[in-house]
Amino acid sequence: MENFTYCTPTKYVFGRGAELNAGSEAKIAGMRNVMVVYGGGSAVASGVLQRVLDSLASAGIQTVTLGGVRPNPTDDLVYKGIDMCRSGGIDSLVAVGGGSVIDTAKAIALGVPYDGDFWDFFAGKVKAETALPVGVVLTIPAAGSEGSGNSVITRIDGMRKISLRTDMALRPRFALLNPELTFTLPPYQTACGIADMMAHIMERYFSTTPDVEITDRVAEGVLTAIIEEAPKVMERPDDYQARANIMWSGTLAHNGICGTGRREDWTSHAMEHEISALYGVAHGAGLAVVFPAWMTFMAEHRPAKIAQFGRRVFGVQSHDDRTAAMEAIEALKGFYGSLGLPVTFAELGVEDPDIATLVAKLHDNKGAAIGGYYTLTAKETEEIYRLAL
Amino acid sequence: MENFTYCTPTKYVFGRGAELNAGSEAKIAGMRNVMVVYGGGSAVASGVLQRVLDSLASAGIQTVTLGGVRPNPTDDLVYKGIDMCRSGGIDSLVAVGGGSVIDTAKAIALGVPYDGDFWDFFAGKVKAETALPVGVVLTIPAAGSEGSGNSVITRIDGMRKISLRTDMALRPRFALLNPELTFTLPPYQTACGIADMMAHIMERYFSTTPDVEITDRVAEGVLTAIIEEAPKVMERPDDYQARANIMWSGTLAHNGICGTGRREDWTSHAMEHEISALYGVAHGAGLAVVFPAWMTFMAEHRPAKIAQFGRRVFGVQSHDDRTAAMEAIEALKGFYGSLGLPVTFAELGVEDPDIATLVAKLHDNKGAAIGGYYTLTAKETEEIYRLAL
Repeated sequence: MENFTYCTPTKYVFGRGAELNAGSEAKIAGMRNVMVVYGGGSAVASGVLQRVLDSLASAGIQTVTLGGVRPNPTDDLVYKGIDMCRSGGIDSLVAVGGGSVIDTAKAIALGVPYDGDFWDFFAGKVKAETALPVGVVLTIPAAGSEGSGNSVITRIDGMRKISLRTDMALRPRFALLNPELTFTLPPYQTACGIADMMAHIMERYFSTTPDVEITDRVAEGVLTAIIEEAPKVMERPDDYQARANIMWSGTLAHNGICGTGRREDWTSHAMEHEISALYGVAHGAGLAVVFPAWMTFMAEHRPAKIAQFGRRVFGVQSHDDRTAAMEAIEALKGFYGSLGLPVTFAELGVEDPDIATLVAKLHDNKGAAIGGYYTLTAKETEEIYRLAL
Repeated sequence: MENFTYCTPTKYVFGRGAELNAGSEAKIAGMRNVMVVYGGGSAVASGVLQRVLDSLASAGIQTVTLGGVRPNPTDDLVYKGIDMCRSGGIDSLVAVGGGSVIDTAKAIALGVPYDGDFWDFFAGKVKAETALPVGVVLTIPAAGSEGSGNSVITRIDGMRKISLRTDMALRPRFALLNPELTFTLPPYQTACGIADMMAHIMERYFSTTPDVEITDRVAEGVLTAIIEEAPKVMERPDDYQARANIMWSGTLAHNGICGTGRREDWTSHAMEHEISALYGVAHGAGLAVVFPAWMTFMAEHRPAKIAQFGRRVFGVQSHDDRTAAMEAIEALKGFYGSLGLPVTFAELGVEDPDIATLVAKLHDNKGAAIGGYYTLTAKETEEIYRLAL
């Protein structure tokens, strides 16, 4: 086990009607003049946006709104939000939506008190130390951004999709999680969210750090719960209990509890970010394609942990690690397939992917050698992309 | 799953030399004039107390010390600490020790800013809302107090041992966890700590709340890790990795992550508190005696969750719930026995327990009907105490 620091101060309020606590929680967090960030029409149509605005108003909190966040959110709206915050004297943000909305709110929160270009943080030029406070009303369990210190933004100039990871600056002050708000998610989006949260665990789990039994067992537990509950939400979208289990799993998948004491990897995420930046696919769907390909490469080169995953999560029986690893990958692909997710580029709708460009941009963004579980240069990442054909 | 609020803001710094961060973390927490609370000679002899004092001093922080905390800590030292804090202008506390030391520091922290008698909080007369900030340097993984909002103090007048549970007021600001500090724990104390942390999980796990798969799986994961790592620390006390796994498990067992979304029970703890208050036994040893007895009663009256525990944690195979539950209890007793723990009153050194007094004080403290998993009156709690003979 490696030394670590772990601090997750976000206050989670979980259950039916959780969004009605927006006003009281914002007040506790000292928010007075709030920008409410949201995406498209669903937050309006479902009434959740209005309920949040009403709750904030009834707590005496001023609000302005910024809508129009789209999947794989881009820097243009971040710049617009920063300008609006500065001119409106905004002191905090509340995101009503999923990861894209939360990440946009976080990037704005970071940019407002900073004198330079907010992209400096994403480009790694400046360390993120301070930001406006952010609260969350979650409507899509997937990205885990409601409990993480991270934000992923795509720069339109060059379509560079970059993930920024901070220790504390971007951890939300509060996150309101009402499983009922997820009843109306379309099946494909539900499934993509499940693939995303599983990937957040697996990026941490596939680690070479030995002697992390406690963290392994917690990670395996969350994965097992997701695999058990996922078919229920696919079959009956308004199954409150199954939705609740999936929603809380998505938070635990990414708030750090599955990563304590070990080096993490995140190569599959980096490889997927290039796919969604280039082809605009859903992040979770891209992960369902890339992760099994990455695992297939690892089954050849470093099978032990893939085999452990197979045995403990999917009940794989083989004693030989390489065989067990391959069986684990087949089980995972079968599970993704059962949710209606793609597991190849073709199924993702990308018949002839430009692998050379994906590889070039990946290493341009991340360096010549990437990966914690196993080091990969362009030769190997090309092989992994090809394994997803 | 029930609605819940979950917030664990404690900053954990985990690893070799973690205690050397006392000064920097105390400074971040705004501490200026600190009372350092500790127990007996081991904190002095091992040098950890001096290292913490040096670290605080080098950060420009003033300190006074209060030693002499004993297991099952009593109110007399709390009163003394409150007086010392008030007369010395103390603004915060750092506990160097295990649960008894931390709980004493917490009770002092609660009492200093309160006009009345600190026992009012423990007697349930006043709700704990505010306290001086507390930091922790953990030396005994067991009580989980380093991450909880709880404190357990015994009132000498009447020997009433009462547990106070707060949402936020008593959550430590920081907890420094160095597994090396636990190398010198005697085997019996190590084993008692293991029984204590397992009980913290099981009190939450044995719940009638349905549809808490995610929380169950996390709880089972932590239990499994403890059961795997425990024999290693018993065999080789200076096995850093096993000690690290046990130490972090003890924190996760009690910081709330194993309880989200369900009603909890805590009857076994309440029943044990009467035993240790009356006979001065180690809390963990008392739990190793009481919990299997409680489970044996439940195997008769509500076996399903006991059976699930057996199947998922101990690999019990029986399909019949009652049989599986009884096998689970045998497996648990066998595990405790392998650590050198008692599983009967006699093995605990209490040949002829005064069960009438235990029962009377239990219900005097906790009410005529207790328990969340199954409601128990004096008739049933007497039966459970007898099952431990």
